[in-house]
Amino acid sequence: MTAPDPQTLAERYFHEAVTDVAQCHERPRVLGLIASTDKPSMAYARATKQRFLDVGMDYDLEQLSRLDLEARILEANSDPSVHGIFVYFPVFGNQQDDYLRNLITFTKDIEAGSQYWVRKLYANDRFAIAGDPSKKALLPCTPLAIVKLLVELRVYGDPSIKPGALSKPLSGKQVTIFNRSEVIGRPLAVMMSNDGAEVFSFDEHGPLKFVDAKPSECNITRRKALAGSDIVITGVPSAGFAHIEADEVTSKAIGINFSSIQNFSDAAAEKVSLFIPRVGPMTVAMCMRNTLRLYRHFHMGTPDD
Amino acid sequence: MTAPDPQTLAERYFHEAVTDVAQCHERPRVLGLIASTDKPSMAYARATKQRFLDVGMDYDLEQLSRLDLEARILEANSDPSVHGIFVYFPVFGNQQDDYLRNLITFTKDIEAGSQYWVRKLYANDRFAIAGDPSKKALLPCTPLAIVKLLVELRVYGDPSIKPGALSKPLSGKQVTIFNRSEVIGRPLAVMMSNDGAEVFSFDEHGPLKFVDAKPSECNITRRKALAGSDIVITGVPSAGFAHIEADEVTSKAIGINFSSIQNFSDAAAEKVSLFIPRVGPMTVAMCMRNTLRLYRHFHMGTPDD
Repeated sequence: MTAPDPQTLAERYFHEAVTDVAQCHERPRVLGLIASTDKPSMAYARATKQRFLDVGMDYDLEQLSRLDLEARILEANSDPSVHGIFVYFPVFGNQQDDYLRNLITFTKDIEAGSQYWVRKLYANDRFAIAGDPSKKALLPCTPLAIVKLLVELRVYGDPSIKPGALSKPLSGKQVTIFNRSEVIGRPLAVMMSNDGAEVFSFDEHGPLKFVDAKPSECNITRRKALAGSDIVITGVPSAGFAHIEADEVTSKAIGINFSSIQNFSDAAAEKVSLFIPRVGPMTVAMCMRNTLRLYRHFHMGTPDD
Repeated sequence: MTAPDPQTLAERYFHEAVTDVAQCHERPRVLGLIASTDKPSMAYARATKQRFLDVGMDYDLEQLSRLDLEARILEANSDPSVHGIFVYFPVFGNQQDDYLRNLITFTKDIEAGSQYWVRKLYANDRFAIAGDPSKKALLPCTPLAIVKLLVELRVYGDPSIKPGALSKPLSGKQVTIFNRSEVIGRPLAVMMSNDGAEVFSFDEHGPLKFVDAKPSECNITRRKALAGSDIVITGVPSAGFAHIEADEVTSKAIGINFSSIQNFSDAAAEKVSLFIPRVGPMTVAMCMRNTLRLYRHFHMGTPDD
C-alpha cells in the first residue's frame, strides 16, 4: 500500500532548513543548471527552485546547452556569489555525466555526488577537510534521503536515533537494492550495511552482498534475495531488469522506488506493507541540508573568496 | 591494406625509454593490477610486463579480487617504492571502473586516465602542477598512442613536428571516431581537432563535431561522415553500432581500430589505404613515456616520500 507522501515526510527537514537559513548572515544562493528542454525535467527543476525559495534561499535556474555546461560549472566554481551548484542529470547519458559531476568543486557540491565526497563515505572519513573535526563531511543526497525516509517511517526505530550511530539501527534487517551506481546504489548499500543491515545489491551484472559496509561476492538469486527482504529499493531507469512483480515480494516488506520510472508493478506496490513511489522531495530536503552545511563550512563570513 | 605492425611502429619509443631509464638513479617500478582471470587478459598483462622489463623498468603484476582493488590502489598510492600504477580495465564494467580510475593518485597514474589529467587536456593546461612550468602535464595514453601512430605513418607530416604545435599538422583532414569515452574517444577528438582536423565523434547517442578542440552539435549521418573522412578510428567493444562496411569508407582513408574486437569488416580493412588493427604496443610505449615523466617529476631523488 502507498505510504504517506514523501513531501509530507520531508516537512520536518524543510522546517529545519528555514531555521538554519535564518541564522545565515546572507541568503545562501544556489545555481541550478539544466541542459534538458523536455517538459517533465523543466517542471521538476522549477519545483526544486520553488522549494529552495520557500525556505528562504536564493535559487537561480539556468537553462543552457549541454556543451556549455562544462565551462559554466568551472565559472560557478570560482564565483564567490554562488554557494551551491545543482546540475540536473542525465545530460549526455554517458561517462561524460560523471566527468561533469566530478567537476563541481566539493565546497559547492550540494548533491555530494562528486568523488570527493563519495570517497569519504567509503573510507568512513567523517570530516570535510582532513584534520579539521569542526567540519563534518557531506553524504550523497539521494542515499541520505532514502535513509531519512526510513527514519521518518520508524524503520530505523525512533527518529532521534541517528543513522551511522553505533547502535546499528538496521540490525537483523535484510535489504535488496536494484542499482549500484556510484552516486546512489553503492553509497546506499554501504550506508545501510554500516547501519547493521545485510544488503543485496543488484546491477545488470549480478549481485554483491554488503555487510558492515564491506562488499563480498555472492550468487544469491534475485528471487531469493527479494523473498527474504524487509526493504526493497529500486532505481533502474529502464523497463526490464528491475521490474518487481507481486509474487516476488512479501506483504511485510517496505518498497521504495527512486527511479524516474516505476520499477514496481502496481500489484507489487499494492502488496507490500508500505510503498514509496518517489524520493524526490526528501532528496531536495537533503540538498538543502548539504547547502547549509557547505555554507557554514566554506562560505560563511567570506563573501569575497 | 594492413599497415606495418604497431609493435614495429612503436620501436622508436621503446628505444627512447631505454635511454631514459638509464638516466634514472634507480629502476622505476610499476605495479600492474589485474582482477580478471580470463586467459587473453592475463596474456595481455604478461606481455605488458615483459615490455617494461625489456626496457629496464621493474613491473610487478598482481592478480587480485575485484573487491580488493580499491584498497590496493590506496595502499600503492602511498607506497614510496611504487612509481606507477597500471590497472587492467574493465573490472566491474560499470561506473565503478571510473571511480577506481580516479582513485589512482595523479603522480602514479601512468595511463593518465584519471580526471586530474584529462581535465588539464580539456583546459589546455600544459603543466602538471599549476604555476610550475618545469613539470609538463601528461596526456592520456591511448589517444596519445593513436596520434603517435599517425606520426609514424607520416600522416602528421614529418615526425619531428610535434602534435599540439602551432602548425596544425592535421589541417584540412577530416576524421571520424566511433567512441566518445572520457578516457579515449573524447580526449582523442579534442587532441586531433586541436591539431587542425575536423572531427566527427560518434557514440550510440549520435555525433558531435569538434573543431579547434571545441565540440558543437551536428546532425551529420554516419555514412556522410565516413565518406568524407581521411582517417577513421573505431573503438567500440561490441558488435553492431560501429561495424564499418567496405562501401562506407574510401580507398584513400586510413583505418585504426583500438577496440578489443574488430570494428572494421575484413573487406573494409582491405579497402582502406592503411589499416591498423590494434594500438596496444604503442599504448604501452606511451605508458612507459608517462612513467618516466612521472618518475622525473615526482619520484626522482625522493625515494622516501
